[in-house]
Amino acid sequence: MPEIETDSGAFAPPGGAPPAKIPKAVIKRLSRYSRVLQELELKGVEKASSRDLAEALGVNSAQVRKDLTYFGQFGIPGVGYYVRELRAQIKRILRTDREVRVALVGVGNLGSALMSYGGFQRQNFRIVAAFDSAPAKIGRMQNGAPVLDIARLQEELRSRAVDIVILATPGEAAQIVCDLTVKAGIKAILNFVPTRLTAPPDVAVHDVDLSIEMESLAFYLR
Amino acid sequence: MPEIETDSGAFAPPGGAPPAKIPKAVIKRLSRYSRVLQELELKGVEKASSRDLAEALGVNSAQVRKDLTYFGQFGIPGVGYYVRELRAQIKRILRTDREVRVALVGVGNLGSALMSYGGFQRQNFRIVAAFDSAPAKIGRMQNGAPVLDIARLQEELRSRAVDIVILATPGEAAQIVCDLTVKAGIKAILNFVPTRLTAPPDVAVHDVDLSIEMESLAFYLR
Repeated sequence: MPEIETDSGAFAPPGGAPPAKIPKAVIKRLSRYSRVLQELELKGVEKASSRDLAEALGVNSAQVRKDLTYFGQFGIPGVGYYVRELRAQIKRILRTDREVRVALVGVGNLGSALMSYGGFQRQNFRIVAAFDSAPAKIGRMQNGAPVLDIARLQEELRSRAVDIVILATPGEAAQIVCDLTVKAGIKAILNFVPTRLTAPPDVAVHDVDLSIEMESLAFYLR
Repeated sequence: MPEIETDSGAFAPPGGAPPAKIPKAVIKRLSRYSRVLQELELKGVEKASSRDLAEALGVNSAQVRKDLTYFGQFGIPGVGYYVRELRAQIKRILRTDREVRVALVGVGNLGSALMSYGGFQRQNFRIVAAFDSAPAKIGRMQNGAPVLDIARLQEELRSRAVDIVILATPGEAAQIVCDLTVKAGIKAILNFVPTRLTAPPDVAVHDVDLSIEMESLAFYLR
C-alpha cells in the first residue's frame, strides 16, 4: 500500500501550543470523520473519497477537503483516502491514539451511566476517578474507578494526571465544580449539565445537549 | 416588526407525507439553528445574519441559506433573519411547537438520568411512560411517569399515543426492543445503546454517541 504523504508532525509538537486558528466545528467534524472511517474499516472498505465522507456528515466534498487541509496533505488525487491510514492520522491529530485520562464529577444516575458506558473505553478514554459529596458513595469502587471526596478534587485531579473532567453534577453545583476544575489546571471539560458554564478562554468546555438529537427526530413524526 | 414571508405551510400539511428529499444532516442542523436562535433570543438579540448562524455551527453562510431554502423563504435580503420569528418557524417545521410524547425503555442508570433530564421538558418533550423488565421497578412512578412492564410495550405505546421511543436498554436487548417498537408503529427512535440497530427505512433511528464530544475535546489537550 502506498504511503500517504502527511504533514501531521506540525500538529503534535511535544509541548507545543494548540493551533490557534482551527475552528471548533472542524475539530468536531474530525471526530465524526473518524467514526465514519471506523465503520468503513469494520466493513472492510479500503478506500474512501471526500464525497463518501461528505455524504456521511451532510456537508459538501469541498468542506471535507478544506477541513483536512488544516492538518496536512491527506489522500491521493484520483484515488481518495486510505481508510485505515486516514483514521490513524485523525486519531493522532485528536490525540486519541493513546489513553486519555478522565475524571467524572457527580456519581448520580447520569454519572453512574457514564462510568459504565462502553463507548468511552472503546475510544481510549479511561475514567480513572470519580468524585461525589455523598458519604455513602465516597470510598467505594465503581466500574473499576474509585469514588473520591469532592473536597479533594483539586489535589486528586493533579496527582492522577487527569486530562478531561466530565461534569454530571446537579445544576446548582456545576459552576462551582467547574471553577475548582479550572484551578486544578484542567483544560478540557465535558459538560452534561444543562447549564451554561463560564470558564477562561484557554479551557475547552463542550456542552452535551441530549435533546438536540431528539429534536431533529421530531421532524419525522408526520 | 415586518412580517417575514414564509412558505412553511408546505411542510406541515395535516397528515401529509414527509418531504422525502431533505438530507438528514439538514434536519439535524435545523435543530442546532434553533438552539443558536434560542441563545440569541435569551440575550435579547433581535436580528441575525446567515453568517451569524453559520459561524455558530461551523458551516458557511451559503450552507445556512441552502438549508433554510428547503423549507421556504425566510429572512429579508440585507436585513437577515428575525431571531424570534425564525426560531418559531423552525420549531414548527421540526414539529416541536407542540408537546411530543416520549416513552423510554430501560430504567437503569442512563434511563433514570434521562427521565430526570431537564433538557427534554424544556424543548416540549414529555416522557409519558417508561418500561423495564425488573419486577422491583414495574408499577412505580418515576419523575411523573409510570414504569410499566416491558411485556406490555406494544399495547401501551399505542394506547398512550407515543411519538418517540428512547432506547436505554442493555446492549443485548436493544434490537429486540427496537423490533417490538417498530411493530407498535413507532416511526422515531432515539438510541443511546452503543449498538447499531436494524430498522425499516420508514423508521428514523438516531444514534446518540456520547463519546463524540469527548473525542473532539481530546484535541485541546496539548
